[in-house]
Amino acid sequence: MLNEYHCWLQRRTVKNPALQAPVLQTVYAHSGGEVASQAAEEFRRGIERLLGFSPAMYPLSAGTGESVGVYLGTIATLEKQLPRAAGKLCAGGFVIKTAGKNLLIAGQDEAGLLYGVFRFLSLLAQGKAEDNIDLQEEPASPLRIINHWDNLDGTVERGYAGPSLFYRNGHFDYDPQRIEDYARLLASVGINRISINNVNVRAEAKLLITEAYLTDAAALAAIFRRFGIRVFLSINFGAPWSLGKLPTADPLDPAVTTWWKERAALIYRYIPDLAGFLVKADSEGEPGPFQYGRTHADGANMLAQAVKPHGGEIIWRCFVYNCQQDWRDHSFDRARAAYDHFMPLDGAFDDNVILQIKFGPYDFQVREPVSPLFGALRKTRHIMELQITQEYTGHQIDLCYLPWLWEDIMRFDTAYGPDSRIKDLIGQHSEGRFPIEGFAAVANTGLDRNWTGHTLAQANLYGYGRIIWNPALSAAEIAREWSVLSFGFGPAAHTAENLLLKSYPAYEKYNAPFGVCFMVTPGLHYGPNIEGYEYSRWGTYHRADAQAIGIDRRPAGTGYSDQYAAKNAALFADPASCPENLLLFFHRLRYDYIMKNGETLLQNIYDTHFEGYDEAAAMLEQWKGLKNVLETDVYQSVLSRFERQLANAREWRDQINTYFFRKTGIGDKRGRMIYE
Amino acid sequence: MLNEYHCWLQRRTVKNPALQAPVLQTVYAHSGGEVASQAAEEFRRGIERLLGFSPAMYPLSAGTGESVGVYLGTIATLEKQLPRAAGKLCAGGFVIKTAGKNLLIAGQDEAGLLYGVFRFLSLLAQGKAEDNIDLQEEPASPLRIINHWDNLDGTVERGYAGPSLFYRNGHFDYDPQRIEDYARLLASVGINRISINNVNVRAEAKLLITEAYLTDAAALAAIFRRFGIRVFLSINFGAPWSLGKLPTADPLDPAVTTWWKERAALIYRYIPDLAGFLVKADSEGEPGPFQYGRTHADGANMLAQAVKPHGGEIIWRCFVYNCQQDWRDHSFDRARAAYDHFMPLDGAFDDNVILQIKFGPYDFQVREPVSPLFGALRKTRHIMELQITQEYTGHQIDLCYLPWLWEDIMRFDTAYGPDSRIKDLIGQHSEGRFPIEGFAAVANTGLDRNWTGHTLAQANLYGYGRIIWNPALSAAEIAREWSVLSFGFGPAAHTAENLLLKSYPAYEKYNAPFGVCFMVTPGLHYGPNIEGYEYSRWGTYHRADAQAIGIDRRPAGTGYSDQYAAKNAALFADPASCPENLLLFFHRLRYDYIMKNGETLLQNIYDTHFEGYDEAAAMLEQWKGLKNVLETDVYQSVLSRFERQLANAREWRDQINTYFFRKTGIGDKRGRMIYE
Repeated sequence: MLNEYHCWLQRRTVKNPALQAPVLQTVYAHSGGEVASQAAEEFRRGIERLLGFSPAMYPLSAGTGESVGVYLGTIATLEKQLPRAAGKLCAGGFVIKTAGKNLLIAGQDEAGLLYGVFRFLSLLAQGKAEDNIDLQEEPASPLRIINHWDNLDGTVERGYAGPSLFYRNGHFDYDPQRIEDYARLLASVGINRISINNVNVRAEAKLLITEAYLTDAAALAAIFRRFGIRVFLSINFGAPWSLGKLPTADPLDPAVTTWWKERAALIYRYIPDLAGFLVKADSEGEPGPFQYGRTHADGANMLAQAVKPHGGEIIWRCFVYNCQQDWRDHSFDRARAAYDHFMPLDGAFDDNVILQIKFGPYDFQVREPVSPLFGALRKTRHIMELQITQEYTGHQIDLCYLPWLWEDIMRFDTAYGPDSRIKDLIGQHSEGRFPIEGFAAVANTGLDRNWTGHTLAQANLYGYGRIIWNPALSAAEIAREWSVLSFGFGPAAHTAENLLLKSYPAYEKYNAPFGVCFMVTPGLHYGPNIEGYEYSRWGTYHRADAQAIGIDRRPAGTGYSDQYAAKNAALFADPASCPENLLLFFHRLRYDYIMKNGETLLQNIYDTHFEGYDEAAAMLEQWKGLKNVLETDVYQSVLSRFERQLANAREWRDQINTYFFRKTGIGDKRGRMIYE
Repeated sequence: MLNEYHCWLQRRTVKNPALQAPVLQTVYAHSGGEVASQAAEEFRRGIERLLGFSPAMYPLSAGTGESVGVYLGTIATLEKQLPRAAGKLCAGGFVIKTAGKNLLIAGQDEAGLLYGVFRFLSLLAQGKAEDNIDLQEEPASPLRIINHWDNLDGTVERGYAGPSLFYRNGHFDYDPQRIEDYARLLASVGINRISINNVNVRAEAKLLITEAYLTDAAALAAIFRRFGIRVFLSINFGAPWSLGKLPTADPLDPAVTTWWKERAALIYRYIPDLAGFLVKADSEGEPGPFQYGRTHADGANMLAQAVKPHGGEIIWRCFVYNCQQDWRDHSFDRARAAYDHFMPLDGAFDDNVILQIKFGPYDFQVREPVSPLFGALRKTRHIMELQITQEYTGHQIDLCYLPWLWEDIMRFDTAYGPDSRIKDLIGQHSEGRFPIEGFAAVANTGLDRNWTGHTLAQANLYGYGRIIWNPALSAAEIAREWSVLSFGFGPAAHTAENLLLKSYPAYEKYNAPFGVCFMVTPGLHYGPNIEGYEYSRWGTYHRADAQAIGIDRRPAGTGYSDQYAAKNAALFADPASCPENLLLFFHRLRYDYIMKNGETLLQNIYDTHFEGYDEAAAMLEQWKGLKNVLETDVYQSVLSRFERQLANAREWRDQINTYFFRKTGIGDKRGRMIYE
């Protein structure tokens, strides 16, 4: 039966494994560093979890070619056993190979070994561990990062799964066993970096970089380190002023530079392998270089020089925009902000600065175009930021399977020459440009026993790890993997997989129509509020009047479409070629605009909203089919969320439809109920 | 110069008082209870404050008719000195009379003496103390109540003047001198009751009726007692369950009845003159008798019986409505709620239960009709609830002089026979019906040094006391009094008076148009959000579409208009006779409806909003005229609020105008700027 706590690492008896048990009875493990040790321990735990016995563990040196068993090591240490010299893999890469009567799991490095072990266990659990394995993998993304927006008071910004895993009442306060279990889950899908505090660094979090907190931070980092995960700290750009009591935090002020260098040296004494700092600057009220008339390159490079002697890196967020916009001003377009701010700085950043760019120009909306910075940046290290926590996608009340969206992102063609889809641009192998070096995403986890509030939202955490490891994976493949790993073989897995795949289209249908974005309750970001941001300072308007809706982002309008490569600029600028799910992002259109299906825009709004609700209702009914299949508590917990989702979908359907009916006076051509 | 802390009790030298100083040099004061003693002390302090000397104080017995001086006493104790027997006055009434060379101030009771002293001092400060005074006054309202929505954590619900005067960190925590000064201010305008905690009784406030808190509560009550002010406690109807650990709080359960009787006995041991309990039940999530299938009479009477042996009364709020309304349901009308709930219970309440009815059917809106319960209730004691704190009227950022509204309320004719204006129904003199026994209002005070945040908002606290004492006073008269008392004679007083009188019309103009209400930021209640409550559960909708706006509350609509006496029902039901400032409260009208000035409703919306902004701008300019007149800190503090008000007025103007322009496509006929 499902134990929600264990997520996709369920304890179950795998019957008739293709591999003969004898080979799995004995393990010869490379005794290298602590990650290699952890890999061996994970192998032992995994076999026990899936096959019900604990293999005998020996040092690698004890295994001769003759000794039947599993050999765990790095490619270097297993050189003898590997039938042919493996080519050099990327960091984190691994080989799983049957060699005679033995099974070899060899990582390019210790982390690679750990990932190889988890991959083997996953195959075993899925019934895919053949008796003759020959598998070689390497991660597409060197940087596979989880961001925590946890505050030291124990709250989690945009968290929907209970309080923080790390903090309570202003201090580190956690169960080390739970953190180890969390690190295991993350490592099992290839995560190798974690930022442990909110990018909005306020209150006690400003003290994280002081000795009062660094001992505790180091203890937390030590747990993650065993699983190949290095820690980032989010820092406040204003710290020299607010913490250091300097008169300024100007990045070109020598006293500031010195302060950060000394501070970095202090921090690295506690956490020698700290990955670096994550910085949200000049964004939504946070301090930054603009305050001092400096560029973001000035700000980032100053910090980069402070951490460089220690091997650290600076991740600098590009979520910089004017959040004091006047809604009356149609000339300003927030969607332009990231490109306008950072494209002119391409090449101006030090080599240990990495820009973190949100996938779209707005802010994790249900549907928005991929940021025009991707493909365009050629001389600057950068990663893409996704969001696993369901800020705008249902708060882990509504089921919303995010790999559905991520697959679209991975396949988006930036149109900068051949092979310029996002998935082609990832990793160190791209040539002639700086690749997308990986991904960061805000976690959806908290102290809820099932980690993610909605049990099925575990699929989003799993899927994030999987798709950034291998962007060629489809959302459907990932859903299949996760469902089988979580629910085993049977009707529950089948239903779960099916629901995941239905969930995103349904959510998108009942949400803001056709990429218009942000018809959402201000602040909360759950549930509809059609004009909620319409007269606000946030720059996210739809400007619906009695005839038309949307922002004209063509060259004749705000010109946002011209931030893309020529082919895409042309594609987006013409409503006829613009993808319909982004039609109202790029265009202002009359309600009587005829869409591809021959119906008006207005009728399409009505249709999608009736359909989205109906699909949510069908999902609820489908879940009810598991009533006698699943344990009661899991069944009920998910059921109650589907019920809340249906109420939410009803509000979206009716408020959106009523809103446009009131604007236009035109009803649904199929005569369905629209409230006045 | 103005000392904001002293409000309308400024220290200043009154020149050439008409009264000869000699009579004021000597005081013969009745040494009765503590209120009489306080009255004598107030007289002494007041003379010192206004004339610069401290009179010699003697017991009343020392004064013969021959001794020249001021005689302070009750009518009974001054029988000898009063030239003719005064008729019996109401409680709190007083006589101020020159008798030969003496000045007599005689209260019907000790509180009356105190009020007489404050009235005399006010006349003196206003230069109205003639050398031959013969004045007799009595308060129209027996109950003149201030409600505090203070929480024990120190926050104040809907408070805009700093933290609580009474509490901090879960406990009573105050400066006794400041509370005495507060009691003085309140008594000086005739307040005789105060409820000291929020009607939403949560967290530690539930413990106020336990011994852990009652000693402190009694100490606070003792300060107010000296000033003739008795304390109410807000209680939680669910206390027998939540505090007493009984299985129920059902008012008909004998264990519950007993629990409250014992609890009342305990409380009265600490505060023997406690005025009673204030109760918000079955309202916005608070517990109440509905939970147990009981009526509000059942609930109130049960509590009334508990406090009756101690002389206590129960004030029971009528703010009971369905706050889980479905916006789709047009058949339900929140405006009907108070009448629908309480009119059928007329006569069902015990004689120590007093209903507290908000002045309008909604919730302290800028403009709403007077509740139809007034005049209609004939067998139930009741008071009217006003709001001094500026929840919907500008948060003490915007200047909004509330007596302007209160004058309209006082003059509203309920049309239940002759002399049935609200002001006619107040007090104990009405015949054949239960009168309106007085008023309660949420205070606008807090720990800000000037008490009310906006210094000019002191006029609202002053005006509340004055108009409920004497409902025949006009807003203009009160503004004149307050301005002179606060600023003395000169340009500042003139400007302040003038600004007060301009402020309400300006605020009303830029707010929601023509009584449609609630186009306000949800939760916060400051600034516009035209559809903020449109799809919410709160029952306050305007349902604007492309052609029309408003709720039809005629008999053909929700029938709310029929809750009024026939004459008013007819008046309100016809748009032609309905007061235009309530037009959209009672009617759903097309934007092309022609109003009395010959312009369309839409054009009138535009006109009022342009005018409201312009008037706010003019108020700011007018205030700037005091730059070299006032002390810098007072000038600047008010100036910065006028600046914020202007920004707010601009948002109201532009968002309202744009909203209707987008709906209709019709611009301003005068060509003023409406943003798209």
